[in-house]
Amino acid sequence: MLIQEWGEEGFISYLQNQFFSKEQSTIGIGDDCAVIPFKDQSSYLVTTDALIEGIHFLKYQISPLDLGYKSVAVSVSDIAAMGGEPKYAFLTIAIPKDIDQNWLKFLIQGIREACLKWNILLLGGDTVGSIKDIFINGTVIGIAHTQQIKYRSFAKPKDILCVTRSLGDSAAGLKILQDGLSHSGIYGELIRTHFRPEPNPNEGMWLAMHDGVHAMMDISDGLNCDLKRLLKASRCGGIVEITQLPISNSLKIVGIKEGWDTTTMALKGGEDYCLLFAITEGNFKEVQQSFYKAFGKNFYPIGWVTEGSDLEYQKHGNSIILPLKDFSHF
Amino acid sequence: MLIQEWGEEGFISYLQNQFFSKEQSTIGIGDDCAVIPFKDQSSYLVTTDALIEGIHFLKYQISPLDLGYKSVAVSVSDIAAMGGEPKYAFLTIAIPKDIDQNWLKFLIQGIREACLKWNILLLGGDTVGSIKDIFINGTVIGIAHTQQIKYRSFAKPKDILCVTRSLGDSAAGLKILQDGLSHSGIYGELIRTHFRPEPNPNEGMWLAMHDGVHAMMDISDGLNCDLKRLLKASRCGGIVEITQLPISNSLKIVGIKEGWDTTTMALKGGEDYCLLFAITEGNFKEVQQSFYKAFGKNFYPIGWVTEGSDLEYQKHGNSIILPLKDFSHF
Repeated sequence: MLIQEWGEEGFISYLQNQFFSKEQSTIGIGDDCAVIPFKDQSSYLVTTDALIEGIHFLKYQISPLDLGYKSVAVSVSDIAAMGGEPKYAFLTIAIPKDIDQNWLKFLIQGIREACLKWNILLLGGDTVGSIKDIFINGTVIGIAHTQQIKYRSFAKPKDILCVTRSLGDSAAGLKILQDGLSHSGIYGELIRTHFRPEPNPNEGMWLAMHDGVHAMMDISDGLNCDLKRLLKASRCGGIVEITQLPISNSLKIVGIKEGWDTTTMALKGGEDYCLLFAITEGNFKEVQQSFYKAFGKNFYPIGWVTEGSDLEYQKHGNSIILPLKDFSHF
Repeated sequence: MLIQEWGEEGFISYLQNQFFSKEQSTIGIGDDCAVIPFKDQSSYLVTTDALIEGIHFLKYQISPLDLGYKSVAVSVSDIAAMGGEPKYAFLTIAIPKDIDQNWLKFLIQGIREACLKWNILLLGGDTVGSIKDIFINGTVIGIAHTQQIKYRSFAKPKDILCVTRSLGDSAAGLKILQDGLSHSGIYGELIRTHFRPEPNPNEGMWLAMHDGVHAMMDISDGLNCDLKRLLKASRCGGIVEITQLPISNSLKIVGIKEGWDTTTMALKGGEDYCLLFAITEGNFKEVQQSFYKAFGKNFYPIGWVTEGSDLEYQKHGNSIILPLKDFSHF
């Protein structure tokens, strides 16, 4: 049997089984970060993410500056997902011998830019050769108040499901690159969203302070895929009203011009790196208002949690079936 | 300019320059682990290491069981190098889609075996696809008493330089594989040392408790290369008496049979994963005796630290020049 048939979810379940222990049930595999308590009220959050040439990026498409930046940003998004503040980074860089020194210098500059932006200290890593492909692996450690850490498994029926930003822009940027379309104007903006993800650590820390927020995670493999993970972990179902999905003006305009199904893009497209959370109905209005005061922008309700176990899509309140296949790395 | 010309040391210096800060000067890039204090008396040690197909291993040479084991062991060695106890692991596994599920199951079993052996909890990671090569990155977090942590930069002139095990066996095992020699008997033992490194975390924790031990690191890129790093970090020179280098009986026998220069192998061969440390003359005898009581084996004095800045080799007290070229990943 090949890995491809096993699938990523199957592999992760297998890992959970192999390494499950009583201690790990609270701090183990499955959430965006591992949680390691270190003082009465504080915990470290640890996450690790890889960017592989040919899978996550093409060397002659993304600039080394953006690649360096992105290698830190994707892990910052995981720390944000649980309400933590990113603090320390460790990077493994595997590069073939014939890489130009300047390429590497710009990669480092991008890493440095991201570290400065989020006030992260780069504390170490491993620099090794590779035969052909570039591999970058980032481990980021964050700090959180133990009581405020948000997991993906505590959503409750009737909670409102929300996202912190419009969806599908990164996927649109990738499609523009893949289809060889224009890079100018709003097309370029969408490409930029793909190369320069903007994780939401401040929003994550802010939301973590609110008890009404029951569950949280970041959207990295597309809303459809990640929301299913959140619902499964919470042993709930959910309903998403697709007319409520936030879609940026840029994506709307390009979508019409190119004849794209932007709803599917918003649901399936990966690498949004914004937050998905479930909040009690009672707190929703109040939290949304103070969120606007704090950040000068809204978050977006897209549906709600149900007693069941399935994720249902509705259009104007009527159930619809969408042809969505889950994303898998294998 | 290509990376190859820059060299690994040049690249690490560049990184240190780019990311240097006051805080980082005590806990940053350069030692085997980063040090993150978390309680009055305790610190976390964090290290990250990659194993790249074609560079660190050949898929059809090493079994997935050994590869999984080794991916944890190499990081345990870094924790040992600073006197810490390994506690948590995070693994990134990037694999092509056509890998067989059983191969992956054995890889996981090897990881599990290593985690059980050193009482490490696997807390997370990232599982992703790759185009062609297998890439494994392990991050291990350990715990140490802050005051007892050993750095590579505190060796002092007249300190005795010691290693905790015989050198060159792993390099010999690799050479047996590369030259297509017999795998039976002691040849097989040497191959096994290459595939199944035995880091010394207990010895490291024990040595860390002794104030007389001034500096410590693990030997992963060969004694010649790593000792130079220790001396440079300590702003000292050193003398190694090559007749004192511990060489195993297996390597001696195979070396004679195959006509190998085992001294060069012991000095240059990588992946020994034992400890190198500098200890005050006054403490040496007493510590060596209690080490023997604690572990039922000796550590080996191989030379001493000097006021200068060069590493000199001697044979029976006479200076000699050895044709050694430093190891570099690029």
